[in-house]
Amino acid sequence: MSRFRYLSFLTDYGLEDGFVAACHGVAARIAPDAGVIDVTHLIPPGDVRRGAAVLAHTVPYLPPSIHVAVVDPGVGTARRAVAVAAGDSVFVGPDNGLLSWAVRAAGGAASAFSLTNRDLWLDTVTATFHGRDIFMPVAAHLAAGIDLAATGDEIEVAGLISLPVPQSTVRDSIAEGEVLTVDRFGNIQLTITASDAAEIGVEPGGILFIRCGRHQLTVPYRDMFGAVAPGELVAYADSAGLVAIAVHGGDAAEQLGLPPGARVSIAAVPFTIRP
Amino acid sequence: MSRFRYLSFLTDYGLEDGFVAACHGVAARIAPDAGVIDVTHLIPPGDVRRGAAVLAHTVPYLPPSIHVAVVDPGVGTARRAVAVAAGDSVFVGPDNGLLSWAVRAAGGAASAFSLTNRDLWLDTVTATFHGRDIFMPVAAHLAAGIDLAATGDEIEVAGLISLPVPQSTVRDSIAEGEVLTVDRFGNIQLTITASDAAEIGVEPGGILFIRCGRHQLTVPYRDMFGAVAPGELVAYADSAGLVAIAVHGGDAAEQLGLPPGARVSIAAVPFTIRP
Amino acid sequence: MSRFRYLSFLTDYGLEDGFVAACHGVAARIAPDAGVIDVTHLIPPGDVRRGAAVLAHTVPYLPPSIHVAVVDPGVGTARRAVAVAAGDSVFVGPDNGLLSWAVRAAGGAASAFSLTNRDLWLDTVTATFHGRDIFMPVAAHLAAGIDLAATGDEIEVAGLISLPVPQSTVRDSIAEGEVLTVDRFGNIQLTITASDAAEIGVEPGGILFIRCGRHQLTVPYRDMFGAVAPGELVAYADSAGLVAIAVHGGDAAEQLGLPPGARVSIAAVPFTIRP
Repeated sequence: MSRFRYLSFLTDYGLEDGFVAACHGVAARIAPDAGVIDVTHLIPPGDVRRGAAVLAHTVPYLPPSIHVAVVDPGVGTARRAVAVAAGDSVFVGPDNGLLSWAVRAAGGAASAFSLTNRDLWLDTVTATFHGRDIFMPVAAHLAAGIDLAATGDEIEVAGLISLPVPQSTVRDSIAEGEVLTVDRFGNIQLTITASDAAEIGVEPGGILFIRCGRHQLTVPYRDMFGAVAPGELVAYADSAGLVAIAVHGGDAAEQLGLPPGARVSIAAVPFTIRP
Repeated sequence: MSRFRYLSFLTDYGLEDGFVAACHGVAARIAPDAGVIDVTHLIPPGDVRRGAAVLAHTVPYLPPSIHVAVVDPGVGTARRAVAVAAGDSVFVGPDNGLLSWAVRAAGGAASAFSLTNRDLWLDTVTATFHGRDIFMPVAAHLAAGIDLAATGDEIEVAGLISLPVPQSTVRDSIAEGEVLTVDRFGNIQLTITASDAAEIGVEPGGILFIRCGRHQLTVPYRDMFGAVAPGELVAYADSAGLVAIAVHGGDAAEQLGLPPGARVSIAAVPFTIRP
Repeated sequence: MSRFRYLSFLTDYGLEDGFVAACHGVAARIAPDAGVIDVTHLIPPGDVRRGAAVLAHTVPYLPPSIHVAVVDPGVGTARRAVAVAAGDSVFVGPDNGLLSWAVRAAGGAASAFSLTNRDLWLDTVTATFHGRDIFMPVAAHLAAGIDLAATGDEIEVAGLISLPVPQSTVRDSIAEGEVLTVDRFGNIQLTITASDAAEIGVEPGGILFIRCGRHQLTVPYRDMFGAVAPGELVAYADSAGLVAIAVHGGDAAEQLGLPPGARVSIAAVPFTIRP
């Protein structure tokens, strides 16, 4: 009997070609009873960090799954292909840090295997499409019930590649961090958490002082976009529990010129205004 | 036993992030046996009218479903979250008019409930992502078999927010309306129906006189794009039963500069040409 | 009992509208137990050749299916609608060449039928949306178990429209072909196969001399992108077994200005370099 009812699937393959469908087809042949939940296939090509962030924010809402993630600029090089057990799920992908934030959010790696068992791969493996030829077939076999240990050689979990964990620091009533990601709406997600904000006295209804590059801004900190007039900047705790900056009905990233990685610090403005 | 085998899902969340997938995950946890049909997630951010049009045109072809639609610029404000029974389906979303055209097309609201039963929401509800935290979990519980009345307080169907119904008028052999929507091909869909056209004597094979802004055009009215040469304008009854204007192999909206909402009137040219 | 567990679906409908969802809905009503694998819906509008290439490259990885493909600039004209049995699958779509490369890859057409049985269509058939009104309902009936012969009149397989098969020629140590397609990453896929390359002495580790238009290039031929430095050109045998040209981390099609159809010839450079 199968242990996993679902596969999830995140890549930078895009939707213009048949790449994603070929992987779906491979899964359907091997594990016809597993449902596939597509996380996204529009990670910018090769952007491992962005893939890691989207995966880590989405996985907590998915059912126990074999999570397949492929953003793999080193495809065909010596980087390992791995399967990592964490929490109630298994993560399958390249060992380049892509999986690391989601694995951490799932409670950390319990065990890890290098995908060296070629019996689980497609018969022909191309140098450029391991998603179809290695990652998805191995994941589908896992969904269909094989043991994790059958995927290959066990490896040290301590040896898995990890991306630097998004950092925020709180000191002298100032929280510092950086832009973690920018979503489709242009909303800017910081690495500063809502608890960091609370710790320095920033509460919904208050005002944030934001410093980023040459910008210095005072922005209302609210529960929702709708609390400010269209076109106005607003900060809020977003759906991932992080402080985010938006323009109501607009594109904050464009307006502020803040790309992922940009340093940002925030402080509370010590009085309350009525918007 | 579950009453609904399908959920449908329309949003403006885009496909670059994991937002849609998080909602799929929530649905899979609560109603693993329900299939999810994605209507579209590329409604322009906050464009309630466009969301309403796409939903209303698509729902008649979907099986009986819990239809979840979230285009919700007022998320987190006082706007109600509702579940509306209409025809053989239930519509779940914000009470901002988004559902109104589809509900009307399904025969009108039979009953409506405000989603006040927090037991059906996720444990943690964020201010900005009610699709994941409220709408989808409630919808999935409905698909899994709970009574509609369990979703919250019954409300008056007459009190539901409705968008103005797309209007067309026929007078003195002229049909007047506006641009309802523009699709990916640049085809311009009017609010004028094929029956309006028939009423003023416009039949396939004839010629339309179209006035829109400063433009005055005579355009063949045909059964199909293919009836005119590439690059030529053509009008036709589209797949939703509405009069539409296209350029064969081109982008009519770009060529004519006609955005949604633009006023258009048509009349029959009283002779037949051979194209 | 149903003979096919899966439908696949390729179109140029885009994802902004509800067109794809309406077809999914039609399939769900007629064949609720069939899974639908979306190949892509982002074929450039009317680009039959691109649709044919993506379909042919993807189908070998899909399970036995009813493959529905609709890139149909002649919708509503006299072009036939067909169902073609080939290999372990059935292909359903317009008879305009779209299906031809995939049918050929599946072993050639065993039998073909013109979709003339209106009992399998939707009750109302529009002139512009045969995907929803004819192709998908017929395909879903096939997935649900009806005989192929019930779809309409049998036709000669020799009379099916075929696109010219992508050609490559090998002569005097030179392989000639053209650009078959360009993917989302800007990788240029040639009609020249990896075996053509081997035949003229091009092996991984060697160097390619490439002539295309006014360009003359020497490019390393490698097993993988990662074998060259970021920003460098590299040629390789791609995941479809064809010679492709990429820029590691960049967009080769943009850099070289090579659109689909451009003539390209390659030869081996008779010595080996170390990259």
